[in-house]
Amino acid sequence: MKTIDKSFIRALKGEILDTPPFWLMRQAGRYLPEYREIRSKSRDFLDFCYTPDLAVEATLQPLRRYNFDAAILFSDILVIPDALGQKVAFKEGEGPVLEPVRSAGDVARLNGERLHDHLAPVYETISRLASSIPETTTLIGFSGAPWTLATYMVEGHGSKDFPAARTWAFSGAFSDTGFADLISLLVDAVSEYLCAQVDNGAEALQLFDTWAGVLSPSQFERWVIEPTAEIVRRVKTAHPDVPIIGFPRGAGVLYADFVRRTGVDGVSLDNGVPLDWASSVLQPLCTVQGNLDNMALLAGGQAMETETTQILDALAGGPFIFNLGHGILPQTPPEHVARLGEIIRGRNETR
Amino acid sequence: MKTIDKSFIRALKGEILDTPPFWLMRQAGRYLPEYREIRSKSRDFLDFCYTPDLAVEATLQPLRRYNFDAAILFSDILVIPDALGQKVAFKEGEGPVLEPVRSAGDVARLNGERLHDHLAPVYETISRLASSIPETTTLIGFSGAPWTLATYMVEGHGSKDFPAARTWAFSGAFSDTGFADLISLLVDAVSEYLCAQVDNGAEALQLFDTWAGVLSPSQFERWVIEPTAEIVRRVKTAHPDVPIIGFPRGAGVLYADFVRRTGVDGVSLDNGVPLDWASSVLQPLCTVQGNLDNMALLAGGQAMETETTQILDALAGGPFIFNLGHGILPQTPPEHVARLGEIIRGRNETR
Repeated sequence: MKTIDKSFIRALKGEILDTPPFWLMRQAGRYLPEYREIRSKSRDFLDFCYTPDLAVEATLQPLRRYNFDAAILFSDILVIPDALGQKVAFKEGEGPVLEPVRSAGDVARLNGERLHDHLAPVYETISRLASSIPETTTLIGFSGAPWTLATYMVEGHGSKDFPAARTWAFSGAFSDTGFADLISLLVDAVSEYLCAQVDNGAEALQLFDTWAGVLSPSQFERWVIEPTAEIVRRVKTAHPDVPIIGFPRGAGVLYADFVRRTGVDGVSLDNGVPLDWASSVLQPLCTVQGNLDNMALLAGGQAMETETTQILDALAGGPFIFNLGHGILPQTPPEHVARLGEIIRGRNETR
Repeated sequence: MKTIDKSFIRALKGEILDTPPFWLMRQAGRYLPEYREIRSKSRDFLDFCYTPDLAVEATLQPLRRYNFDAAILFSDILVIPDALGQKVAFKEGEGPVLEPVRSAGDVARLNGERLHDHLAPVYETISRLASSIPETTTLIGFSGAPWTLATYMVEGHGSKDFPAARTWAFSGAFSDTGFADLISLLVDAVSEYLCAQVDNGAEALQLFDTWAGVLSPSQFERWVIEPTAEIVRRVKTAHPDVPIIGFPRGAGVLYADFVRRTGVDGVSLDNGVPLDWASSVLQPLCTVQGNLDNMALLAGGQAMETETTQILDALAGGPFIFNLGHGILPQTPPEHVARLGEIIRGRNETR
């Protein structure tokens, strides 16, 4: 098998490696001048994501600079609502704006029938990447998880506390108001989307549940754990060998339940998760990925060295993938990423 | 001793009560029409806080509607930067705006000498409240904790991820850039402020560390646990009997370290903390307070009933104070608060 030589896949299968594999969330993106240059070639951000020439190039750019063990498809989580027929626009300096879905009627108007047609350019991007990335690099596909997609779809924009989505979710846990149907539609769409990514060459998958942390435990169970478990089940039925990483950001103590109950192969940790707990509670259950504070990478210098070393000391003795706790910040100096790679890679050689 | 009859104090001293004491963060505020009416009497929000007639009235309003076991001083955490000489303004619909503190020079220009003069109206409010609240009601004083105050002081406004504060904090943990001096100045100011509140009649204290959850574990140790432990030590030296509640919102697994290492008598939990973990890990260490999702209170009905009952089932068997996981939302119908009180109070009678 070809994948057996990819350290990223080996780590996700539970192997403990001398040097942990390493990639960064948003490793392709605005901190790179070459990205800002190609980004200007498309006015609309979703159009950029739907243009294979540009999305392939954006995905490959960081691989030319750094020796990452994985490349993640360049795309956006909001292609799913877009593909379901909800209007999505990215406004300069304002983030995404969607026509909000707020009722059973709104949910009924969403339509999964054209999903694969709509997402065909993403599949083409993946298939081109599969044949162009280095042999030892793993190609990661991804999707937003249902709860996080729902926060944007219901709120209509980014938010601090998602009042519309959370109140609808609460009533939707007890009566038939349409919210459960929305999540169920998203479980279908995300499962199909991820399977198609694998069919086109993705070798591992990550589910981003960026806003999982705002939910109370009962709501986390209903709208994060249950939908994720169902997606994992469906993807594994079609593709038993493809490892899946979950990222319920901000889940705190609930990371443990998430790992135990969803069947993910790996869990990505935000920077608030203490290393001793991750090592003693989570690592016996699955591979952990994380969790350098993106501000430490931005700060660089001794802060970055110390934090990185602490993470390696605590977690590299178990199944582990080095990453950030959240996406790389646009202001990050690219040379800090190079130095980070040296710390991670150099460590084993100097011991 | 008079305080022995106050259920709120008894719960904080570790006693397990048949009916847990009950109050809500932001129980005085915009969800009450009578608050919105008096709020319009002062154009500037800090002026409102510094006018004892208005601040006393705002504190008392919820006590006339509901049978809360505690009243919390009506004020704002930003009186501290204001008292230290930093310009603070509240702009309509925009939240607080401060002239940012970003360098050792900026920190040196802050000045604690006029602290008590500046805060004298707050002390007068407390002293009037002490003689006017019902005999069984506990008067809670409060302050923002140093880290959270620093986020506003450095950023100059509210933020999602506090880039300026967090990068300065990172470098400040390794070299003398002024950030450690800022925290140290805040430890002095907050300790003195809380002691003066007790001198004027506050019977318990709460430290709000609203943005504790954005920090990585090493930074949480340095900027949340250490300053809080020092404040608790100083307040307890002057007032050994006054119980202190800490609220490091979003601390996740780190709530346990926080409780073990700061010496607080109680810990307030955000709604993300799972109840079984709070009961098995935290309650043996101190009194816990929380943690109903404020969206469940807003939603009302079966969502609120179910969530409330789950919390009482899990936590009322140990030292416990019922509260929200975060402040009450302005859109909350006041009758939901009345119903919540009935659920908590009625429970013991119907068993």
